[in-house]
Amino acid sequence: MDKINVGLCGLGTVGTGVVKVLQDHQEHIKHKLGCEIEIRKVLVNNMDKQRDDIIDRDWLTNDPSELVEAANIDVIIEVMGGIEDTNKLLETALKNKKHIVTANKDLMAVHGQKLLRLAKQNHCDILYDASVAGGIPILRSLSDGLASDHIQKIMGIVNGTTNYMMTKMTDEGLAYDSVLKEAQNLGFAEADPSSDVDGLDAARKMTLLANLAFKMELHLEDVNVTGIRNLTQEDIQFAENLDYTIKLIGIASMHNGKAEVSVEPTLLPKDHPLALVKNEYNAVYVYGEAVGETMFYGPGAGSLPTATAVVSDLMEVVKNIRLGISGNTYIDPQFDRQLKEDHEKYSRHFIRFEVDDQAGAFQEITNIFSEHEVSFAKILQLPSDQEKTAEIVMVTHKISREQLLKSMAKLEGLAIVKRLISHYRVDGEE
Amino acid sequence: MDKINVGLCGLGTVGTGVVKVLQDHQEHIKHKLGCEIEIRKVLVNNMDKQRDDIIDRDWLTNDPSELVEAANIDVIIEVMGGIEDTNKLLETALKNKKHIVTANKDLMAVHGQKLLRLAKQNHCDILYDASVAGGIPILRSLSDGLASDHIQKIMGIVNGTTNYMMTKMTDEGLAYDSVLKEAQNLGFAEADPSSDVDGLDAARKMTLLANLAFKMELHLEDVNVTGIRNLTQEDIQFAENLDYTIKLIGIASMHNGKAEVSVEPTLLPKDHPLALVKNEYNAVYVYGEAVGETMFYGPGAGSLPTATAVVSDLMEVVKNIRLGISGNTYIDPQFDRQLKEDHEKYSRHFIRFEVDDQAGAFQEITNIFSEHEVSFAKILQLPSDQEKTAEIVMVTHKISREQLLKSMAKLEGLAIVKRLISHYRVDGEE
Repeated sequence: MDKINVGLCGLGTVGTGVVKVLQDHQEHIKHKLGCEIEIRKVLVNNMDKQRDDIIDRDWLTNDPSELVEAANIDVIIEVMGGIEDTNKLLETALKNKKHIVTANKDLMAVHGQKLLRLAKQNHCDILYDASVAGGIPILRSLSDGLASDHIQKIMGIVNGTTNYMMTKMTDEGLAYDSVLKEAQNLGFAEADPSSDVDGLDAARKMTLLANLAFKMELHLEDVNVTGIRNLTQEDIQFAENLDYTIKLIGIASMHNGKAEVSVEPTLLPKDHPLALVKNEYNAVYVYGEAVGETMFYGPGAGSLPTATAVVSDLMEVVKNIRLGISGNTYIDPQFDRQLKEDHEKYSRHFIRFEVDDQAGAFQEITNIFSEHEVSFAKILQLPSDQEKTAEIVMVTHKISREQLLKSMAKLEGLAIVKRLISHYRVDGEE
Repeated sequence: MDKINVGLCGLGTVGTGVVKVLQDHQEHIKHKLGCEIEIRKVLVNNMDKQRDDIIDRDWLTNDPSELVEAANIDVIIEVMGGIEDTNKLLETALKNKKHIVTANKDLMAVHGQKLLRLAKQNHCDILYDASVAGGIPILRSLSDGLASDHIQKIMGIVNGTTNYMMTKMTDEGLAYDSVLKEAQNLGFAEADPSSDVDGLDAARKMTLLANLAFKMELHLEDVNVTGIRNLTQEDIQFAENLDYTIKLIGIASMHNGKAEVSVEPTLLPKDHPLALVKNEYNAVYVYGEAVGETMFYGPGAGSLPTATAVVSDLMEVVKNIRLGISGNTYIDPQFDRQLKEDHEKYSRHFIRFEVDDQAGAFQEITNIFSEHEVSFAKILQLPSDQEKTAEIVMVTHKISREQLLKSMAKLEGLAIVKRLISHYRVDGEE
């Protein structure tokens, strides 16, 4: 096989980028693969749009079957987006023994496991590195570079939109609503921002990462998700005073065969490498048994980084075809899906609440924590804006989520406690 | 070919790690490669040492020819160190069509280009990812993941010993001599620490990185190297006051087909991601045309990270054998070796000197800088410990190295200038 034929679905900014990267690096690619790659068909919606500067008009079609059912196509690159219709298209492609490269994380989060299995049955590859963190080759590093290591924990900033917003809130003291508007104006956030700000996008990516790292089939529903809608300037200021930065952090960890995956606003020490990841950048920390700490940092999205990642995946697919190991990319989960329960999830926590400023109040509160064996690393008490109340901020030592929830429930029952204002996980320190 | 046979040279901590990683991950490796890997011979010095818990006694030999000339060996893993004898061994291996994986950066820095060419002639691979930054798959990322990108700049902390020492000096206010002693006691620094503290080790690694990134054959002599022997607490404090951290930074950049490679103590903004890389950790920043900024962070050395990197390289070699592209890993330099001259090397600089504290002194100094069109972003003047002298610290805007050297020479000629105390590059900001 001296040529691999590609069908490209979608010719937006990423699709155009893919065409350009393949053209610019033709020689290099041939050298690295021992064969050529050629785009044979491009699926577009509007055949009449002017594209002569990008691609030969003869290659265009609006009929999917000319790609996914054509005998002369080996690999489908899907960069058109969409979920249900696109899923059907890719199912047809797999049944016709086409390998797939996709940058579509929404699709992979919903139908990924099914598609991966279908691919395996048909001895085909699906590679989707571009879907997780555009410019960071993190999936490949997990399945390849760190292949010979046991991964214990992954900790990452995997959503560029929320990281951009939180950077603005932290560095410029702006309110949530105004940074959201700014992000929307810049095109970083959608008109309906829920998928980003509620943490769902990050949760989808953490699911994909955790599955690969732990070789266990975890679902989106297994992720504890808290978004950033309720994050306030006061929280950020308190964190700052205690030498922390708040980031939306995805954590996947494995202990004694049991996994925990969460996405939530998390306090990190200001000098933690993830604390410095600013604006729309992404970074993923990996703790491996042998290799120790490694981190990958890069742009989370963008059309050129994504196109570059798509081409890297394409080269991998071609290598696998030529090695005769297509379909081996998908590793059947080796371990049964087992999740930590609340009494097994250990972490430090930041807790902030408002109390009546009266004698004995503090004692009453510390009693409750003592009952649940919760001890503290840091405590701040200060008068609140309200008359006759005080605000208390505490950072616990490592406690179980069960201890946290039980003591918070008790706290809320106390007459002197006006309200629990916020609580966040604290991570990245011993 | 359903089995690849390996000869292992060296059974120290890294070699033992390689044996263990291969044993532990046998199934996974077979799955990813479509074939098995087996260690057939192990070259050791002392045949009598007790190693029965690690490896079968029959595999051991102290005769190199049983590995490098044996018909049944496909790949040589070299983790025994040494330069000249080891070079001869590997030359013989290549002439006998053995592929090579090595973790030996001293060897690669001295004989790398020659070995790579010999390998290519014999259609063999030499992979040496483990030699550059143990746990960071940076060479592979440069030649693979970012393959379809043009790399403009690499900036890295690539020597763990000096980074450990500078972290201690910065965070704990210790003097150079005492941190060196500590590093020696911990085994991070050698009895003769020159290779680390004079920047040679880092320069070797930057040469290997630059060759690969720019597809140009650069030599160790092309690197401007300054070590950390003269670094003082005062320099660190002044940098701190100006919101910088000093790190030993390797920089390789490419502009208009001309390269610049340097290793020198460099001031970085405190919130630059490299400024937070502490202790013995390494990190490499890569700026690609398409992908933008990416960073790889991890342990720079250590026997398990290095063993893991060796096995990853081994897997790559095996893939290439099966793809029939062995020898293609080495890319002939595509561009002629062209280096920037001093008037083309632009950077900001930190300059610190002691002057007579008399009227007009400051004016005289600024006149000299004006003559050379050097302007400043930051200036500090403060009385020195000496009587009647003052210390001046300046941070320039971007100037050429020619401007820097000329104005410093003029400065040194001034009667009022007692001495130039230190000067460092400033990078990582616009």
